[in-house]
Amino acid sequence: MKFNTRINKLFGIEYPIIQGGMIWVSGHKLVSAVSNAGGLGLLGAGSMYPDILKEHIQKTKKETSKPFGVNVPLLYPNIEEIIKIIVDEKISIVFTSAGNPKTWTSFLRKHNIKVTHVVSSVKFALKAKEAGVDAIVAEGFESGGHNSREETTTFTLLPMLKENISIPIIAAGGIASGSSMLAAMVLGAEAVQMGSRFVASEEASAHIKFKQKVIETQDGDTYLTLKELAPVRLIKNDFFNQIQDLYKTCPTQEELLTLLGRARAKKGMFEGDTEQGELEIGQISGLIDEILPVKVIFKKVLKEFNNSLEYMRRFD
Amino acid sequence: MKFNTRINKLFGIEYPIIQGGMIWVSGHKLVSAVSNAGGLGLLGAGSMYPDILKEHIQKTKKETSKPFGVNVPLLYPNIEEIIKIIVDEKISIVFTSAGNPKTWTSFLRKHNIKVTHVVSSVKFALKAKEAGVDAIVAEGFESGGHNSREETTTFTLLPMLKENISIPIIAAGGIASGSSMLAAMVLGAEAVQMGSRFVASEEASAHIKFKQKVIETQDGDTYLTLKELAPVRLIKNDFFNQIQDLYKTCPTQEELLTLLGRARAKKGMFEGDTEQGELEIGQISGLIDEILPVKVIFKKVLKEFNNSLEYMRRFD
Repeated sequence: MKFNTRINKLFGIEYPIIQGGMIWVSGHKLVSAVSNAGGLGLLGAGSMYPDILKEHIQKTKKETSKPFGVNVPLLYPNIEEIIKIIVDEKISIVFTSAGNPKTWTSFLRKHNIKVTHVVSSVKFALKAKEAGVDAIVAEGFESGGHNSREETTTFTLLPMLKENISIPIIAAGGIASGSSMLAAMVLGAEAVQMGSRFVASEEASAHIKFKQKVIETQDGDTYLTLKELAPVRLIKNDFFNQIQDLYKTCPTQEELLTLLGRARAKKGMFEGDTEQGELEIGQISGLIDEILPVKVIFKKVLKEFNNSLEYMRRFD
Repeated sequence: MKFNTRINKLFGIEYPIIQGGMIWVSGHKLVSAVSNAGGLGLLGAGSMYPDILKEHIQKTKKETSKPFGVNVPLLYPNIEEIIKIIVDEKISIVFTSAGNPKTWTSFLRKHNIKVTHVVSSVKFALKAKEAGVDAIVAEGFESGGHNSREETTTFTLLPMLKENISIPIIAAGGIASGSSMLAAMVLGAEAVQMGSRFVASEEASAHIKFKQKVIETQDGDTYLTLKELAPVRLIKNDFFNQIQDLYKTCPTQEELLTLLGRARAKKGMFEGDTEQGELEIGQISGLIDEILPVKVIFKKVLKEFNNSLEYMRRFD
């Protein structure tokens, strides 16, 4: 296999495989393992206080000499502090999401940082391009966690983006195997970002009970809900059922917010309360049935990619 | 290109491209054009009275000597009459949907009819297999028209099915180009069923105003709604906005049914009332921007498929 996509060149990585910078999951252990395996690891700043992020950056630097980056949700309350740490620590790759790419892109690029923005529609991809990003992540409806109101799927978003935009596209949502990786590249992606697959890794900082829940999850066990607040894909558990019951009463936004409360994601994903916490995971968790070391995940995905390439030769 | 999938053999067709048997769209002209082009055309019995179906079968037979079939929604009220016509007319290919595959599969197979059932989850695929179907259509969340409550997308449904089932899979939902066709095959499909792409064909019996609306539709312009009745993906128009307004009042099922009324699909798709009718179309309509003859659609899709195969060689 030869990977010479624009994404490989942009980030200086061997394989076009990026690990999503997920809250409560993507700490220094996961990130350095992914980067050491030849992919791109991303720290998930969204669940870190500024000093914690700094600590994770410094630990990651010790654990790998390969490129890695930071995912920054632009709605983060202490965003200035986070950005200052990123610049001070000479981070060279930032993925931004959940916010306007215009606000920080040119500032980051002035500091020699490559900026990739997460989008879920053609409209927002064009805005990101205008803001000057180096690449975009195209995230489909099947993705875990927070998601868009358009509900456009990976299978349709990729070709629609490819027709409208020339900057490199990283596919996200529904990818946990080498065949999905190849399919995403057939549809126009130059790399893939995997989230759910890396939640079920030994190195992820997620609670073991959450990881176990992920490998038990089957087709149909996740659902995109809380659309009136911010749409989020969750595993159906007791908390999810409470949401569905509340919906039957035609709740106000305040009532939904009250039920959601605070720190539900931490409770579920980091503290392991798999019934009362939010368990953010993608539809493709139905395909994931083992917790594996990152190295093994890479080996498996690359082998499947190669097998799929081979299989395609039958049509030549 | 060589196509020697099990689906090609099962139906005796040249290309593994099937045209969805869509209500108000799939009459004899479209079906015979698709079969003559080397694919498999399917009459959409769901919007035909029994005598109308008979007429369309007889006309299709006159227009093509190639294999074609009939799509039968199993909840059709006059189902016995429909099945009788299918047997009397010696139809050899039936696609069933929206109902229990156990009811008719063995009866149809006894009459030498090949049966394919439409599913949207692993659970229902296993039920269809148990009922003895020859193949399944795997329909993703991005599909137009009626859809499932699981909301599993094409990109995730295909690999999860492939892992759990050995009978041949036809991918549906999100496919309107040769690259999507190849991607679906990478993910485990042995053929594709295209709906939206054939709505925007010269031969479709849909109203020209509906076809024009389809080619104007962009990414984000469709939405899966009326989930309390039967989930359906529609183009956002005035009728859709009325549904959304009604939802704000926390309506009963009866109130939703009253708003829906009768014959909304016919009004929109066949009579061309693009504001007050239901316009059932898939997310991939955002990629479709021309009304073309079926022959040209085949030529285009096959060329794109070949280009995508070629593109994949860069990874060898």
